[in-house]
Amino acid sequence: MSLLVTGSIAIDTVKTPHGISEDCIGGSAVYFSMAASFFSPVRLVGAVGSDCPFDLAKIFAGRDIDLTGLEVRKNSKTFRWAGSYRENMDERTTDYIELNVLAEEPPEVPVEFRDSKFVFLANTTPNLQLKLLNQIDKPAFVAADTMDCWIEGHPEDLKTLLKKINCLIINEDEARLLAKEHNLMKAAEKILDIGTNVVVIKKGKSGSLMCNAEDDIFILPAYPAAEVKDPTGAGDSFAGGFMGYLAQSSDTNFAALKKAVAYGTVTASFTIADFSLNGLTSIEKADIDGRFESLRKFTIF
Amino acid sequence: MSLLVTGSIAIDTVKTPHGISEDCIGGSAVYFSMAASFFSPVRLVGAVGSDCPFDLAKIFAGRDIDLTGLEVRKNSKTFRWAGSYRENMDERTTDYIELNVLAEEPPEVPVEFRDSKFVFLANTTPNLQLKLLNQIDKPAFVAADTMDCWIEGHPEDLKTLLKKINCLIINEDEARLLAKEHNLMKAAEKILDIGTNVVVIKKGKSGSLMCNAEDDIFILPAYPAAEVKDPTGAGDSFAGGFMGYLAQSSDTNFAALKKAVAYGTVTASFTIADFSLNGLTSIEKADIDGRFESLRKFTIF
Repeated sequence: MSLLVTGSIAIDTVKTPHGISEDCIGGSAVYFSMAASFFSPVRLVGAVGSDCPFDLAKIFAGRDIDLTGLEVRKNSKTFRWAGSYRENMDERTTDYIELNVLAEEPPEVPVEFRDSKFVFLANTTPNLQLKLLNQIDKPAFVAADTMDCWIEGHPEDLKTLLKKINCLIINEDEARLLAKEHNLMKAAEKILDIGTNVVVIKKGKSGSLMCNAEDDIFILPAYPAAEVKDPTGAGDSFAGGFMGYLAQSSDTNFAALKKAVAYGTVTASFTIADFSLNGLTSIEKADIDGRFESLRKFTIF
Repeated sequence: MSLLVTGSIAIDTVKTPHGISEDCIGGSAVYFSMAASFFSPVRLVGAVGSDCPFDLAKIFAGRDIDLTGLEVRKNSKTFRWAGSYRENMDERTTDYIELNVLAEEPPEVPVEFRDSKFVFLANTTPNLQLKLLNQIDKPAFVAADTMDCWIEGHPEDLKTLLKKINCLIINEDEARLLAKEHNLMKAAEKILDIGTNVVVIKKGKSGSLMCNAEDDIFILPAYPAAEVKDPTGAGDSFAGGFMGYLAQSSDTNFAALKKAVAYGTVTASFTIADFSLNGLTSIEKADIDGRFESLRKFTIF
């Protein structure tokens, strides 16, 4: 089924103990689209400025990613982000952030995308996420991401959003902040009480936790990757693998959601093995399937 | 099959955000024995001083724990430990430690225990662990724990020990210190290169990782416990559930080791739900089996 993503296209500069990647392609919609395209056709909605040095059509060549929703704004500048990771890759510092086009009105969802059934609203203000969602006719499954500044700064908008989506995908610190609860099992319950039917909590190296309103629980370790060069994009790649698998299977029961978490996990494990999109552009779908089967073998008892 | 543990019997004082437990029963051999006794008869080898306020026979009443190897030393004092856990339970501070009887010669393994087939050498100097192990005639499967001060202070003794045991059970910081490697997959490989055939790395809230010399891998999340009151004894309870299951099944192939890790995980999840031994004394084997099946259900995809 059709899968639409709204999110950022970024010019990233990333420093890790393994090296520096300057002015490389990044952004939530980019990582998501690349990851999801292994599973399903993707419709991208996003905006860049006239300074954007990337040819997305070329970057996505050979993949079924529809760029009809890509707006190039003549008088705007592209979103820029720079970050540094410390020695153990657990913590990162934002070196600078230039919102640029992200601070403007969101892009329009093209008419031909409005029948999309699976929708991922990458991280931006909840109000913009709602505006984007309102442009979709009758979505079957909507997932969204958020972050600390919207949880703290726009809690009412976020609550409205949570009531309109099916699934929230956030990291553990955000879950604790949103639920005002340290224990993640209790935090998940509290988030489900606010609105969404499914919550996926990403714990980085510690894997992930998924709960739904029917009290189903799924916990999965991270893929045991020996190589971590750059964690940037891991979360959006996870979401891409997750939503890509769901759109491909056209199913959203808990069994399908569990497989989707596993696909998200292994897809992200390739992203972090190299800088920018290199970890994803250098693999085939068979590599993802291989790690999916390995992860199943590593965890079954 | 017969299961023997050598380790400490302690007078613990523990402070957590949930309360204080003063002069309560603790120690590696105590937690281990209680946990393992759900699965298999246990032979305890340990020493206390004449000041020991606990009647171990009464504490272990109704459980198949043989105290023939318990030495009460008239002119010695019992090991004491006091620790405090911070708000999020992730870090603890040792408030005081009095080695007392632990600083003396180790207890003797009684003649009738020398035919033990499964042996757990709880944390003490590697040299003492070797002395204890040498008193066992022909063990089938020996596991040991260690800690930072022996890794740094007695590396050669520890290497000798590793070559004589089948399995090392340590936490992630200890694994990194021993292997001089931050990445846990690589650390596990390096530890296996030193000597033991199996390494189990405990990651607390993040679950555990097991690798063997044949390149088998097992990763398991922690049990998603909503209640954590006192993490003291979690590691020794894990080891007790792990070794208890192996002794019960008389099997040590990788499939059995995986189930043993799962049993260790769920047994420890009960320990941390209350102070001292209360989390373990208040349950039945059926509760452990229930969480074992739940953990399987939570992780399968």
